[in-house]
Amino acid sequence: VEFSTVRYSKQFPLKDFSPESCLLIFDEQLLKAKAGKKIIQRFPLKYKVKAGEKLKDIKAFPKHAESILKTLNDKNTKDLKVIALGGGSVGDFAGFIASVLKRGVPLIQVPSTWLSAIDSAHGGKTGLNAGGAKNQIGTFFPAEKILIIEDLLSSQPQARLNDGAGELFKIALIEGKTLWKKVSTLQTLNQKNLWKLLPEAINAKYKVVKKDPQEKTGYRQILNLGHTLGHVIEATLRISHGDAVGQGLIFALRWSHERGLLNEKDFAEIESSFMFKEFEQKLESSLKKLNLTKSRSGLLMDKKKSQKDSLFFILLKKPGQAVRQKVSVQDVINEVMRQKAL
Amino acid sequence: VEFSTVRYSKQFPLKDFSPESCLLIFDEQLLKAKAGKKIIQRFPLKYKVKAGEKLKDIKAFPKHAESILKTLNDKNTKDLKVIALGGGSVGDFAGFIASVLKRGVPLIQVPSTWLSAIDSAHGGKTGLNAGGAKNQIGTFFPAEKILIIEDLLSSQPQARLNDGAGELFKIALIEGKTLWKKVSTLQTLNQKNLWKLLPEAINAKYKVVKKDPQEKTGYRQILNLGHTLGHVIEATLRISHGDAVGQGLIFALRWSHERGLLNEKDFAEIESSFMFKEFEQKLESSLKKLNLTKSRSGLLMDKKKSQKDSLFFILLKKPGQAVRQKVSVQDVINEVMRQKAL
Repeated sequence: VEFSTVRYSKQFPLKDFSPESCLLIFDEQLLKAKAGKKIIQRFPLKYKVKAGEKLKDIKAFPKHAESILKTLNDKNTKDLKVIALGGGSVGDFAGFIASVLKRGVPLIQVPSTWLSAIDSAHGGKTGLNAGGAKNQIGTFFPAEKILIIEDLLSSQPQARLNDGAGELFKIALIEGKTLWKKVSTLQTLNQKNLWKLLPEAINAKYKVVKKDPQEKTGYRQILNLGHTLGHVIEATLRISHGDAVGQGLIFALRWSHERGLLNEKDFAEIESSFMFKEFEQKLESSLKKLNLTKSRSGLLMDKKKSQKDSLFFILLKKPGQAVRQKVSVQDVINEVMRQKAL
Repeated sequence: VEFSTVRYSKQFPLKDFSPESCLLIFDEQLLKAKAGKKIIQRFPLKYKVKAGEKLKDIKAFPKHAESILKTLNDKNTKDLKVIALGGGSVGDFAGFIASVLKRGVPLIQVPSTWLSAIDSAHGGKTGLNAGGAKNQIGTFFPAEKILIIEDLLSSQPQARLNDGAGELFKIALIEGKTLWKKVSTLQTLNQKNLWKLLPEAINAKYKVVKKDPQEKTGYRQILNLGHTLGHVIEATLRISHGDAVGQGLIFALRWSHERGLLNEKDFAEIESSFMFKEFEQKLESSLKKLNLTKSRSGLLMDKKKSQKDSLFFILLKKPGQAVRQKVSVQDVINEVMRQKAL
């Protein structure tokens, strides 16, 4: 398994590229942002997409693949590269295309959202949705390079910044050490301090991925901390992914404490952080709206489910030590009820 | 890049498998053959397909993928394997499915035709057809194991045996040495002597593939010996792949001789072989029917085309030494005209 190079710069490093040998797959929204438009204009071969889960629908894949082949128009594809410019759904889709186009062409990820810059652009997962479930068809296809462009990320609206906060909070808790120290003592979150924390947060993800790149031992699943209830909140309450993960984290942290895994002192420290307080309020509002029947079926659909009535849930022993435990769907429902009543 | 284990046996080695953890993708035709039916019956999880190029059409892929996910019915896929039971199109299709299902599950190829047993089941290429061209979407995904089953291959009709002959002739010329000695002195081709030659022919293909597994240096393209005109004959005259490759070989050998690459003595030795004579007669009849305008566009569509008007053609210097040369489409057309007049 090869690993990716992550490169940070203020602007897109156009001089390192020969745009003629690249196919740019980009989110049409970026034409509206100055930094995005500037990049897009430089590529003669490009394919515009509308971001979102519909892009990842397997039913749309043949049409996209044939349009992309037509865009390439029988060009010599020997040194072709695919550049994915956009957020999570664009990266998942374009990554899958790169992995299967002419039996695979090198991929460069250029995440345009804080969420994708901190999380989904890294680690090589690509995916399409099929049969009503996410990422059922996909590949492990690590990008050759990931370009993190400050101007591009800064052109995103504030809501998107909050969306990155959930994954930052998660990876800091998984990593522990200095990253957690920095994140736990944040007084606010803005583009400037998120940009500064990005390299450490990204490195922390690679440390986990390198130990289990293709999710064979299960170790990589600790990256799902906050995701089990997060996915239910995301799907049933239509809350954005990063925000839902932040709320799912609060749930997982409280449960880790309740189960006696996370001790009083560590929990108190986490609880006093700015990030915890932000997401705690949101979780409380979500828990009020959460329908238990829908949650139950949501949990059963979750990809971490290992058999009909049980699933792996990621809990935290202390910052830097996430653990995977088998629980029943009923255990989760009971904990939701307990936290509803808090 | 990992490599595959090839295993030869009289019958399907059922005792080595836990059929419960396998998804069998099989050619429905095999239900009619005793050896095929016996294997199929042992697998509870299976997906029946109709062999042929339509199976590989990208437009059909979403429907197949969703039906396969439904067949799996949320089963624990942690130790799932995909078994491809069929000829070339089934192997290409099922191999692609295995490479993208849940981001990749191990694949076992069980070729049911001599053609796939000798060639397409080996080397890790999978593919779907898109935009009117073959294998535009695919992966390099070497099977974990390839099972070569004598009873299964022997249950094929005679025509299918002849279809394997073209690829045997090709790989023997590429390999040279003892394999070529054995093939050049064959007096006839029947299931018994083809079965005996199979391991050497398969090893010869792996020797080429291992030097360039993902076709990055171009060396692997020598396996396309006979394929350039072969594909045109296959597509425009609707002749089976192996048969067309055999005819394309005669064309490439005569051209190699005409260009002074293949010396008189070596050409005379090749010309005197049983295999050469068989395919020479067939080529003569095909050349009479070949329409040059159609051939020209056929050559331009060929995947070995490197730019608008030139292509790489594989020629033979002597048995054991195939070479790749850049020629123009017009050069090929001129040689077709020359050979038409022979």
